[in-house]
Amino acid sequence: MTAPQQAVTVLGLGQMGSALAAALLDRGHPTTVWNRTPDKAGPLVERGARAAATPQEAIAASPLVIACVLDYEALHTVVDPVADALRGRTLVNLTSGSPEQAREAVAWAGSLGAGYLDGAIMTTPPGVGDPAMMFLYSGSEEVFETHRPTLAALGDPLHLGADPGLASLYDAALLGLMWSTMTGWLHGTALVGAEGTPAAAFTPVALRWLTAVSGFLTRYAPQVDAGHYPGDDATVDVQIAAIDHLIHAAGARGVDNALPELLKAMMEKASAAGHGQDSYAAVIEVLRPASRAEG
Amino acid sequence: MTAPQQAVTVLGLGQMGSALAAALLDRGHPTTVWNRTPDKAGPLVERGARAAATPQEAIAASPLVIACVLDYEALHTVVDPVADALRGRTLVNLTSGSPEQAREAVAWAGSLGAGYLDGAIMTTPPGVGDPAMMFLYSGSEEVFETHRPTLAALGDPLHLGADPGLASLYDAALLGLMWSTMTGWLHGTALVGAEGTPAAAFTPVALRWLTAVSGFLTRYAPQVDAGHYPGDDATVDVQIAAIDHLIHAAGARGVDNALPELLKAMMEKASAAGHGQDSYAAVIEVLRPASRAEG
Ligand SMILES: NC(=O)c1ccc[n+]([C@@H]2O[C@H](COP(=O)([O-])OP(=O)(O)OC[C@H]3O[C@@H](n4cnc5c(N)ncnc54)[C@H](OP(=O)(O)O)[C@@H]3O)[C@@H](O)[C@H]2O)c1
Ligand SMILES: NC(=O)c1ccc[n+]([C@@H]2O[C@H](COP(=O)([O-])OP(=O)(O)OC[C@H]3O[C@@H](n4cnc5c(N)ncnc54)[C@H](OP(=O)(O)O)[C@@H]3O)[C@@H](O)[C@H]2O)c1
Repeated sequence: MTAPQQAVTVLGLGQMGSALAAALLDRGHPTTVWNRTPDKAGPLVERGARAAATPQEAIAASPLVIACVLDYEALHTVVDPVADALRGRTLVNLTSGSPEQAREAVAWAGSLGAGYLDGAIMTTPPGVGDPAMMFLYSGSEEVFETHRPTLAALGDPLHLGADPGLASLYDAALLGLMWSTMTGWLHGTALVGAEGTPAAAFTPVALRWLTAVSGFLTRYAPQVDAGHYPGDDATVDVQIAAIDHLIHAAGARGVDNALPELLKAMMEKASAAGHGQDSYAAVIEVLRPASRAEG
Repeated sequence: MTAPQQAVTVLGLGQMGSALAAALLDRGHPTTVWNRTPDKAGPLVERGARAAATPQEAIAASPLVIACVLDYEALHTVVDPVADALRGRTLVNLTSGSPEQAREAVAWAGSLGAGYLDGAIMTTPPGVGDPAMMFLYSGSEEVFETHRPTLAALGDPLHLGADPGLASLYDAALLGLMWSTMTGWLHGTALVGAEGTPAAAFTPVALRWLTAVSGFLTRYAPQVDAGHYPGDDATVDVQIAAIDHLIHAAGARGVDNALPELLKAMMEKASAAGHGQDSYAAVIEVLRPASRAEG
């Protein structure tokens, strides 16, 4: 460590806020912490953090303030009464919320004379501090570039663009992908499990398959942007025939089929809309707002 | 090439059978091909294949016969009239089907004095020949080991076990994971697309996120096998709260929400069954056959 590390304040010491503060301490940042329930600061103080008695004292301690509380309502409960303390400082808000909330927060921070960056954490607390994990940011590029070295203590910082709503928008989209993938994996695990294959045997094969599936997504992304879906690898109609095998095999073993039944219904809707000979990417046409699907 | 390559016959020259024959020719295997519609052999003959006039002649040409036709019905239409020709040879069946069909085929091949291996191709035709792509096999380990060097021309051969139904069972489970993942990606792509982000910008972030999601599956697999789902990273109830953000953000932008609504309903069912404080892996309890969920 050649240069002294930037001082940072962390507001909110739940599971995630505590992990953020710990990662900053690990990198040698002078770290001030505050939490509504003060005991949660204990383990961090043992690791060298300074516990502030009030949010105002916490904000005053550092030019960079990272907030990670339950939701925006909690954030405003904490910060509004002491908002003046933010003047001339930067608030990086890692609290989950909607794109609309992030956009409102920028205006609010601007009116206080504070810098603002919105962020989304694409990992669980044990992943914080791992440079393989993505932290998504959106809003002022200047604020991002100024604090990038400090934000790199938490994970790999990616700036998505100037629109402050982008981090929340990506967060929602990526979590949706996660739930879909995890549920598809659980369905497959239940199916092979019905014949005695343990999850620990199936999962390495499933993970390797996901890398092949990633290749399909890479191939389909430009098709989506072009609105043109050549079905020269596998068509929607071929997938409809194949999903029947899955539904039959899982149904025969008593596995709940609501997920593949829905996926099949979506494929059939795409086929009925004229995409039967297109690639699976054409299913986006039945997901998109009607104006676009018709446009 | 030091030793002469094994002679192989390919029955069925659709998109996939043609890719299989081409990969064998690329590796220098003397390759005999047959297809119901004979013209499809043309491009392969130009690359050095020998076209047989009948299935019988094709089977007689090689000790190893790879079949890849539409379905088992098509397979039996082709092979049953000339079944005696299979005596003393090995049939590797890469035609998609059910575990039950694979098990019947083993008995049928045994009665003919033929070796038999069932397989599932975990890639599309352009991926054939790429050693990163998985070809799943099940049935006799001896037959698999004998022909492994030849099968390696098609992709990476994995033997799942002696039960011949395993390749089909894994195939169905993995395709289900693929459709879930692709549809979750399309939903997220539609969401960010509604705000002007192209699929080509969102997808690299989504792929990187899938590697983090793969880490969650690795963590959850032993939880599934143990039937014990500690929610110390993120609980089902926390995910239920978070999926509401997705449903709200996507709904406000006119994106069809049938998929996240179903995922939320499954999470709520898991929570109602007492798994609200468990990890997402507990959702398998509402997918599994009732006898297991209660056991
Ligand atoms: N955990 C994850 O895996 C994860 C991943 C990505 C993003 N996130 C996001 O990170 C944020 C925090 O999550 P978490 O896992 O740390 O949750 P948590 O463990 O439940 O902690 C919630 C935090 O918010 C505080 N809080 C709640 N209501 C408050 C109020 N009215 N006034 C002041 N403080 C209040 C809590 O203070 P007390 O201690 O006093 O209750 C606590 O510090 C959430 O927006 C979450 O979506 C979490
Ligand atoms: N394409 C993929 O991405 C992929 C991936 C994994 C697995 N598979 C599996 O591979 C197998 C073949 O798929 P494909 O993509 O090659 O399909 P395809 O292009 O439609 O070819 C079908 C093949 O089956 C033959 N066939 C159909 N009915 C027949 C009958 N009654 N008698 C004799 N031959 C008959 C066709 O002969 P004609 O040429 O005379 O019609 C053709 O050779 C399927 O089981 C499929 O599920 C495909």
